[in-house]
Amino acid sequence: MDPKKIKTFKAYSSCFSLRYNGAVEVAKKGGLGLLLRSLSLSNDHEPHTGSMAYHDSIIKIPAAAIGTSTADSLHKFLKRSEVKAYLKLNCKQEKDTSSFNVIGELKGTEFPEEYIVVGGHLDSWDVGEGAHDDGAGCVQSMEVIRLFKALNYKPKRSIRAILFMNEENGNAGGIEYAINAKKKNEKHLAALESDRGGFTPRGFTYETKTKDHYDFNAWEKLLEPYGISFIEPGFSGVDVRPLKPQGTLLFGYEPDSQRYFDFHHSDKDVFETVHPRELSLGAACMASLIYLIDKYGLSINVN
Amino acid sequence: MDPKKIKTFKAYSSCFSLRYNGAVEVAKKGGLGLLLRSLSLSNDHEPHTGSMAYHDSIIKIPAAAIGTSTADSLHKFLKRSEVKAYLKLNCKQEKDTSSFNVIGELKGTEFPEEYIVVGGHLDSWDVGEGAHDDGAGCVQSMEVIRLFKALNYKPKRSIRAILFMNEENGNAGGIEYAINAKKKNEKHLAALESDRGGFTPRGFTYETKTKDHYDFNAWEKLLEPYGISFIEPGFSGVDVRPLKPQGTLLFGYEPDSQRYFDFHHSDKDVFETVHPRELSLGAACMASLIYLIDKYGLSINVN
Repeated sequence: MDPKKIKTFKAYSSCFSLRYNGAVEVAKKGGLGLLLRSLSLSNDHEPHTGSMAYHDSIIKIPAAAIGTSTADSLHKFLKRSEVKAYLKLNCKQEKDTSSFNVIGELKGTEFPEEYIVVGGHLDSWDVGEGAHDDGAGCVQSMEVIRLFKALNYKPKRSIRAILFMNEENGNAGGIEYAINAKKKNEKHLAALESDRGGFTPRGFTYETKTKDHYDFNAWEKLLEPYGISFIEPGFSGVDVRPLKPQGTLLFGYEPDSQRYFDFHHSDKDVFETVHPRELSLGAACMASLIYLIDKYGLSINVN
Repeated sequence: MDPKKIKTFKAYSSCFSLRYNGAVEVAKKGGLGLLLRSLSLSNDHEPHTGSMAYHDSIIKIPAAAIGTSTADSLHKFLKRSEVKAYLKLNCKQEKDTSSFNVIGELKGTEFPEEYIVVGGHLDSWDVGEGAHDDGAGCVQSMEVIRLFKALNYKPKRSIRAILFMNEENGNAGGIEYAINAKKKNEKHLAALESDRGGFTPRGFTYETKTKDHYDFNAWEKLLEPYGISFIEPGFSGVDVRPLKPQGTLLFGYEPDSQRYFDFHHSDKDVFETVHPRELSLGAACMASLIYLIDKYGLSINVN
């Protein structure tokens, strides 16, 4: 990953396909296996996992990630001489099984048939605990509801905190939720996802089917004391994205990204690395945005 | 410390005098000793040290800080019954001795007699390593010079990276530096200090003798991609402040403050807690500000 990209998600997305398509591309060239330099920005021997693809028409070669420092050593050895590697992988793909999204709802007092969603995803990779990815987003989403109840705020619209299932492995939960919303004719005004770690707040990004440009200047000013310095066009979140064709305005919470890829999809993504103040401050920002959407609707922001 | 204050330095400064004046105030009321709940926002048994005062006219009672969780337990015990504490302190105040500021200079090409200072402080409390307070500020200040050299940027003004001595114990280094600057009639245009930890960038604060209001909007926009969202009036830094009467515009680098008081003045302030990307990004922001001051001067910003 390119350490010069200041927003680390840009570094990640620009080399994501090395991991996702690597095994197929290597097999096409006759390679027998793939050892991938982990998509991480820290220097250590920690392998980082993640989604990857095989094509049925191309031989399925073994593929494994190794830590960045391990890869650097290997690179050095390869410059000097031939290296023989013996790969023994014990991973396997189990059959699909039933699992569930978990949904909590605060019924709206004025427009109960209009929904605002705030969510994260409940599943995580097998390594680590998935504390940042996406335990943080789950507890922040529940915290939005808790904060409203603690403040005795009765929302005008119905607010749903959703812990989506299966984001990492096909997004079945997000897709199924959107199908059901359409089937039940539930009008989803907005959906906010937190899936970029439990770090100190920076901003929100948004996207919409119509590509309307929104003017969130007034809201940015209100949120600025809490560390939010932008609400700008950008990616929202994997789980809420299937709502896009229904015209839902989709938001992504964007915390500071400097430390995220130290932990992402690895054994290092554990509870102790989530800072309680950073996590809570993010949840407070999310609650504030949901409050503003609930109170004023979104039409005032269309440019 | 009040955890509800979002900028943690505000929480710190609002109860700083409990530590600084505590022993005197307790002694006035006939107290025999002081156990202080550490000025920290984390829940643990780690004592946090810091400056405190005695008056010669008031009996000097022993005073010690205990961890926040230790204090909470003590508080609970005290509600139930009387508690006897036995204090054995082995701290002592040694006599003053000679030490030195460390100064590196890039000579200006156009106005070599005008100085821009960037600095941190070289001393730290005896506990921990002083990694955030203020190892971070020291290496960032040196990094500003290194970046200019790496870019082959020849500044118009003379740039000094200063590692000040004795910030924690009387500010002798900062005071002495300002005295010498005046004596040698060195015109100090601006001075930037980094002494709030090596965390991800947020902004810069500034102060000046004349209380002129500056308009840094144009510079904020230039620095925004690097995480700087404000350049606003506020405290600069203990070491550069003695330059204030000379009309120097004083800046303080303000990183994100959420984690700072977990480490501050305690055994927890060690190298491993400084994140390399956050530290470097801060140094890059500082170098950018110094570059702008050097290139455009400061008169363009006066409102």
